[in-house]
Amino acid sequence: MSKASERLAELGVTLPPVPKPVAAYVPFVRHGQLCILSGQVPIRNGTVAYTGQAGREQSLEAAQDAARLCAINAIAVGAEAAGGVDRIERVLKVVVYVASANGFTEQHLVANGASNLIKDVFGEAGAHARVAVGVAKLPLDATVEVDVTFVAAP
Amino acid sequence: MSKASERLAELGVTLPPVPKPVAAYVPFVRHGQLCILSGQVPIRNGTVAYTGQAGREQSLEAAQDAARLCAINAIAVGAEAAGGVDRIERVLKVVVYVASANGFTEQHLVANGASNLIKDVFGEAGAHARVAVGVAKLPLDATVEVDVTFVAAP
Amino acid sequence: MSKASERLAELGVTLPPVPKPVAAYVPFVRHGQLCILSGQVPIRNGTVAYTGQAGREQSLEAAQDAARLCAINAIAVGAEAAGGVDRIERVLKVVVYVASANGFTEQHLVANGASNLIKDVFGEAGAHARVAVGVAKLPLDATVEVDVTFVAAP
Repeated sequence: MSKASERLAELGVTLPPVPKPVAAYVPFVRHGQLCILSGQVPIRNGTVAYTGQAGREQSLEAAQDAARLCAINAIAVGAEAAGGVDRIERVLKVVVYVASANGFTEQHLVANGASNLIKDVFGEAGAHARVAVGVAKLPLDATVEVDVTFVAAP
Repeated sequence: MSKASERLAELGVTLPPVPKPVAAYVPFVRHGQLCILSGQVPIRNGTVAYTGQAGREQSLEAAQDAARLCAINAIAVGAEAAGGVDRIERVLKVVVYVASANGFTEQHLVANGASNLIKDVFGEAGAHARVAVGVAKLPLDATVEVDVTFVAAP
Repeated sequence: MSKASERLAELGVTLPPVPKPVAAYVPFVRHGQLCILSGQVPIRNGTVAYTGQAGREQSLEAAQDAARLCAINAIAVGAEAAGGVDRIERVLKVVVYVASANGFTEQHLVANGASNLIKDVFGEAGAHARVAVGVAKLPLDATVEVDVTFVAAP
């Protein structure tokens, strides 16, 4: 089975640089093998690429793309936390928050945008526990925010 | 003190079968003794039994029943993760998301539907840290979703 | 570098008493060095001091104060969990739920009210992973709820 770095290349996914800490919190904290990440929003080149609520400003498909972008950003941070993307041993948990218009109840399908990318990159090691919820609003009006916990190789 | 399996029987609670993984995520991930579960919605016999918001489509009492059902489903998954319900050593944390109508602020009382069942089944080992929040909407229009972390016996 | 207890004194912050468990859940659970806390709302002297949504009943500044008060309450519980505030080795993760009016997208700025206090008290050990989301409503109509995980000294 190919390595995560090889699969990223096959998928044409380039991991973005990890933002430097600008506030009292940090992109990740290590605790033993656990890599605890800060929430990731769908930022691309410094700009939030998907804003507004799923079911209103964003379609299901666009919200799935937003979730995929959040997951890419999370993998970039996880790679830094683990000492390289190929040192990520397991994706433990993914919580997906979806800014949702009233009546929108397909948060699980939005979350698949993140889950499928993670599975594509990590294979069996990417099979994670998941929570998907619909929230009112997210920071910077982001459509999706994901909260990922990785296990790094010892 | 009786075992969790005995208390489930006393309470007349039958654990449902754990759904097979159908997507890129799985019902649970083990990390050492930690059993990290996917979010559980109030599904009974394959159907979401409570839909809509607490304070609108569902009363407080019905939302509490929904939370209890989520907890039963979580215990079923936790039992599979731990190798049997009596091998669950501790209920660590329960996050309860309640789909809430505007003006509904009794998420903590809804969450008691899950917390009380867990305490009834596990006794002291069921005394858990808890977070209860009110959200806009949940997947499949579920009224409640619970996110539970168990500790399994080593 | 001064100790957390000294910095609390310098900041004029007195940790409140930890509420006794009144339900099936408890203020915290220890798992090894991990201190898993229940969600903290902005209670002062037994009363929720900030109610309603940020962007409607509460200004950004007031919501930041609410987040700061939640963090103080969390530090009080963490101190009890760790065996004293100076035995808190690391602040691992902070999830900040902000009850948000439609159109309010500054949850990250609200969350800074908690993050900055934690950094002021714990210094480098207070640099935490953070998730900030906007939710519909919170228990007791609280404006903010924070969910904190600490690492205690072994």
